[in-house]
Amino acid sequence: MQNGYNVAVVGATGAVGTKMIEMLENTSLPIKSIKLLASKRSAGKKVKFKNEEQTINELTAESFENIDIALFSAGGSISAKFAPEAVRRGAVVVDNTSHFRMTQGVPLVVPEVNPQALKDHQGIIANPNCSTIQMMVALEPIRRLTGLDRIIVSTYQAVSGAGARAIAEVKQQSRDLLDGVAPENLKADILPAGGDKKHYPLAFNALAQIDVFADDDYTKEEWKMVNETHKIMADPTIKVAATCVRIPVISGHSESIYVETRASTNVETIRAELEKAPGVVVEDDPKQQVYPQALNCVDKKDTFVGRIRRDLDVENGYHLWVVSDNLLKGAAWNSVQIAEKLHEMDLVHR
Amino acid sequence: MQNGYNVAVVGATGAVGTKMIEMLENTSLPIKSIKLLASKRSAGKKVKFKNEEQTINELTAESFENIDIALFSAGGSISAKFAPEAVRRGAVVVDNTSHFRMTQGVPLVVPEVNPQALKDHQGIIANPNCSTIQMMVALEPIRRLTGLDRIIVSTYQAVSGAGARAIAEVKQQSRDLLDGVAPENLKADILPAGGDKKHYPLAFNALAQIDVFADDDYTKEEWKMVNETHKIMADPTIKVAATCVRIPVISGHSESIYVETRASTNVETIRAELEKAPGVVVEDDPKQQVYPQALNCVDKKDTFVGRIRRDLDVENGYHLWVVSDNLLKGAAWNSVQIAEKLHEMDLVHR
Repeated sequence: MQNGYNVAVVGATGAVGTKMIEMLENTSLPIKSIKLLASKRSAGKKVKFKNEEQTINELTAESFENIDIALFSAGGSISAKFAPEAVRRGAVVVDNTSHFRMTQGVPLVVPEVNPQALKDHQGIIANPNCSTIQMMVALEPIRRLTGLDRIIVSTYQAVSGAGARAIAEVKQQSRDLLDGVAPENLKADILPAGGDKKHYPLAFNALAQIDVFADDDYTKEEWKMVNETHKIMADPTIKVAATCVRIPVISGHSESIYVETRASTNVETIRAELEKAPGVVVEDDPKQQVYPQALNCVDKKDTFVGRIRRDLDVENGYHLWVVSDNLLKGAAWNSVQIAEKLHEMDLVHR
Repeated sequence: MQNGYNVAVVGATGAVGTKMIEMLENTSLPIKSIKLLASKRSAGKKVKFKNEEQTINELTAESFENIDIALFSAGGSISAKFAPEAVRRGAVVVDNTSHFRMTQGVPLVVPEVNPQALKDHQGIIANPNCSTIQMMVALEPIRRLTGLDRIIVSTYQAVSGAGARAIAEVKQQSRDLLDGVAPENLKADILPAGGDKKHYPLAFNALAQIDVFADDDYTKEEWKMVNETHKIMADPTIKVAATCVRIPVISGHSESIYVETRASTNVETIRAELEKAPGVVVEDDPKQQVYPQALNCVDKKDTFVGRIRRDLDVENGYHLWVVSDNLLKGAAWNSVQIAEKLHEMDLVHR
């Protein structure tokens, strides 16, 4: 690094890419230059970065010449093809897609949880799934305190994770329903999963499908929460079960989490641990009706935790309500934070 | 009964009362006359019943002279005051409020689950909470099969349970947000709980509070799911934990339910039991993206069950996604169904 890094953002015009650029405007990462990459369709568009106009370039393998850090968020197939090209040219890749997450040798990192895993990187670091990240931030302080025996999570996930077109679709459906259009006449082309056969309206609805269905009648999104938890916490013995549900929220994932600890503790101790944990803001005062809300978490980097309470029957059982901006901590901010950590730990150039 | 019963509906102009009248239009209950009661404010209004115009009368104690069956849905304080007046005058009361639910001697009934409890009624029968009813309908076939050791439920509840004004509030907030109003400028006067101190917007949000907070930092709604389950299933040893959340859906509650059985079984057996259970429709074909949806359950009397799958780690653990119209099975239909059962079992006049 000479006066900072040459940074590339792949997928710069997408919902997450746009937020990555925002996060890079205020990062502690020293940036010498920024290169914004996207598909041919978006090439030539202008985007502001730190008040200077930047032109979007078409993504090619050669785009990565002289790049030190490349942040990817343009879909799994783009990462599959171009992340190795970037690495070959000497860049370190932080990939926001699911493509490399479970690949051996690719660290899967939440900086508050397992920054040490970065030391083993071979060029690519994977950013976990949005719903996993905020759960990890909230549960890691409890894991350190007592260990975790099991997790049962039901999610209330926002639309923005499915991209700008999904947001537009839900907004249009909402307008139509408010204007008296019958539910069966609503247009749905994207949700619940762009690549799947059928599409359903999400406006004023709840869809118990995120991503496509996989083994054992769990969706891929649900499997991500299981497998990624095991990898990030480096403990495949933690029992994890997830039900992932999309609800009509634009940004901000909420999660109802039940956790069983491996040792005895109490709500006060858990709350105290969470209050001093990095990246966590405790919002938990039932008497004052204080608890995290999706609408309030937007554009904030933290993970908000509330409704902390003991299970009424099970000795080591606790319930929590965890909310975070899925585009920031769930994606763009966690990626930029990984880049910051790589810099701090002097791991950008191997 | 001579040529049918004289039936009264208390709270006839409310969201649930309106649905009760609809349900009474197609009931198997023989009806001789119908009397529609509401507050002074609504008295004089006209409502159609079986194509005949009916006038709303002001509710007084004398309203119940000659009434055989009175369906109440006008708030707990109205039930507290007038249900005993109705009983004193010889009526049997089916009360949709929470007021008498846990009172000893008052049966709390889901007709598919515990109709035999009706035999002990002393004039008042309580209709359970909406979120409890659909859970009971879905879990009773499993309870009969294997017993239930524990239930962990996270709800995705619709607005209509909070009444017509709450629906109007959420619709207005939705329009405002779509028109670019900032979240902090949205008007909120009712939700999450009419009687509570603070009010928050629900549009494009999720609120982890339904009803007011009570013991152990659980809300009253969450306690209802615990206590009512114990009473309906007549088994206080079932472990129940609930997280009750309101989401921007107009009608149709969804529930993510985890259940641990007391004996070994499997998904196929559970599905088969549910398929033959009364009041249950199994919608569960992940390969075809078939699972219950709030938007599809509206105006249907059934409880829809899908996403039936085994827990990945716990031997007797199963997950389900349960959806039902909270105004029908959750309120109006269950009440009318109780009246039908009282008739069938010859229990209207004690």
